[in-house]
Order: sequence, then C-alpha cells, then structure tokens
Amino acid sequence: MTVPFTLTLDPTRDLLFERIVDVAPELVWRAWTTPALLMRWFTPVPWTTTACDIDLRAGGKFRTVMRSPEGQEFENVGCYLEAVPNERLTWTSALGPGFRPSGAAGADALGIVFTAAITLARHPEGTKYTAHAMHGDAASRDRHEQMGFEDGWGKALAQLVTVAKTL
Amino acid sequence: MTVPFTLTLDPTRDLLFERIVDVAPELVWRAWTTPALLMRWFTPVPWTTTACDIDLRAGGKFRTVMRSPEGQEFENVGCYLEAVPNERLTWTSALGPGFRPSGAAGADALGIVFTAAITLARHPEGTKYTAHAMHGDAASRDRHEQMGFEDGWGKALAQLVTVAKTL
Repeated sequence: MTVPFTLTLDPTRDLLFERIVDVAPELVWRAWTTPALLMRWFTPVPWTTTACDIDLRAGGKFRTVMRSPEGQEFENVGCYLEAVPNERLTWTSALGPGFRPSGAAGADALGIVFTAAITLARHPEGTKYTAHAMHGDAASRDRHEQMGFEDGWGKALAQLVTVAKTL
Repeated sequence: MTVPFTLTLDPTRDLLFERIVDVAPELVWRAWTTPALLMRWFTPVPWTTTACDIDLRAGGKFRTVMRSPEGQEFENVGCYLEAVPNERLTWTSALGPGFRPSGAAGADALGIVFTAAITLARHPEGTKYTAHAMHGDAASRDRHEQMGFEDGWGKALAQLVTVAKTL
C-alpha cells in the first residue's frame, strides 16, 4: 500500500494553508483530480482556467492554463509525485512529466518554483484540508506569500467547495 | 502494486547508458541501495565516496559526498522518486528530501540538474542495466555528456559488478 510521505514544516521556506470544509474528502479529491471540475474552481474569479491535463500517478503530467481578466494566458506544467486517493496529492513545478527537471520552464511568471501537497483528513464537519507549499529558499517563500498565497488559495477553496456540493 | 513509470527517451535532452552485466538484478539493487556497498563503487577511482545516506522511498533523501584525489569534497543531496525493488530506482537533484525544490543547491559543481532512472531487467547473462539521465534542456545534457557521463558511469558500473560478486 502506498503511504503518504510525512511532511515536515520548515517555517522559513514553507507556506501552510489549513481549513475545515463541510464536504467529504472524496468530493474534494474528485474536484482536484477531474479536469472538468478543476477548471470550475482552480482560479479565483475573475481569472479562469481554460485548460487542464491530469495524468494521475507519480511521474504524470499536471498542466493548467490560467487566463487573466485581460485575456493573458499562463501555462503551468508540473509533475505529480504522490497520488493517494482521498488523502494526499503532491506535485511540483520543479519537474515536468516523466520526472524530467523543468529547468527554466519550472518557474512561473514570478519566478517561483514550488512543490505543493494537499492533505485531506476526515473531520466531524467534513474534511480537514491542508495545503503545504514548499520552496527552495526563503526568498521564494516570501515572494509567494506576497503575491497573495493565503488569499488566493482561500478563494479557490471556497469555489472548490461550491463545486463539490453540486456533485 | 507500484509499477515503474514508463520513461520516454528525448534524444536532445537525455543521456542513455545500457549494459548487460553478469550479476543478478537483486545484487545490483543491493549495491545501489545499501550505503556501505554504494560507497565501495559509486565513484571511479581515484575518486572516493566518503558518505552516503539512503532513505529508500519516494520523497526520501539520497545524499552522497564524493572526494577528489586532491581531497576536495562535493556533496550531492537529492530525492528518490521511485523505488521498485530490483526493477527501478529513480531520483532527482531538482528536489531535496520531502520533495522540496532544491533551488540553487540542486545544481552540481558544473551547474547540472538531472533526474536519473536506473532500470534493471533480468537477462540470460544476468541483468540488462539501463541508466537514463534526463535534463531540463539540451545544454545541460550536452554539458553532462562532455564531463564524461558515458565513461564515468561505465567505470562505476564495472566497480559495482566487482562489489556485487562479493555478496
């Protein structure tokens, strides 16, 4: 059986986002792993997600295209590292499909490379949802925080819950 | 059951090293995954490997310290991505332990970041041994080739076989 890797928080290089949401882990998982669902919640409005490819296995591709209100598109191509159904989804922009190093393509528009791990745990109210973003250095962490990590992930999660409740 | 990811060769960004060796896959696997054994073969003489940490699971640390004949030491810290016993061992220098992006620390002395996959297959003579090194761009691949990839991996593998035959 595959067991999620135990993650250790490094406050100087990591960002943590925790919420309790009133939908079951299975629905959160579906919203994260089904392209047609992810496209409905992944980017806080008025941004949109115009494309999504998910090859759900370690080494598989995770690709999204985000469109700004002005119509500018940003493609992100990453690689899944862990996919433990209903428990843990981990991917990184430091690698592309097939575990290949991303090189310069791994950095987003702001030059941030990160690994994200979404951990889901059953909770009396639904799901304890933890997003853990890991960076190579404190400068990347701080830049990610300043670009609105907490607010952005919060709005996206609220949208995810709305979508999950329609399932 | 964990199945190794199917790797696709990209000739412009990858290096491939293939040999048939006359020891069983199980012995090659032990030589790659036991620190005391790896230290005996990992660096072509007169280089030596003076330290090795192996946490053999996806997300686990793979650390080596190589010492030049002049006594200069080079530490490499990477992260395992796949560990399928006797079949596939994959790690990358683009990530550190726990899947954290390596940032600048991921490049070696020559600035090369790569993912390596060792694939073992049973063969009438022993083992078909395939090493696949993936890079983010052609320039990194070419630099890796020019620093002696083929020769270095060949000498190290010959040393590995010598060690494996003592087991």
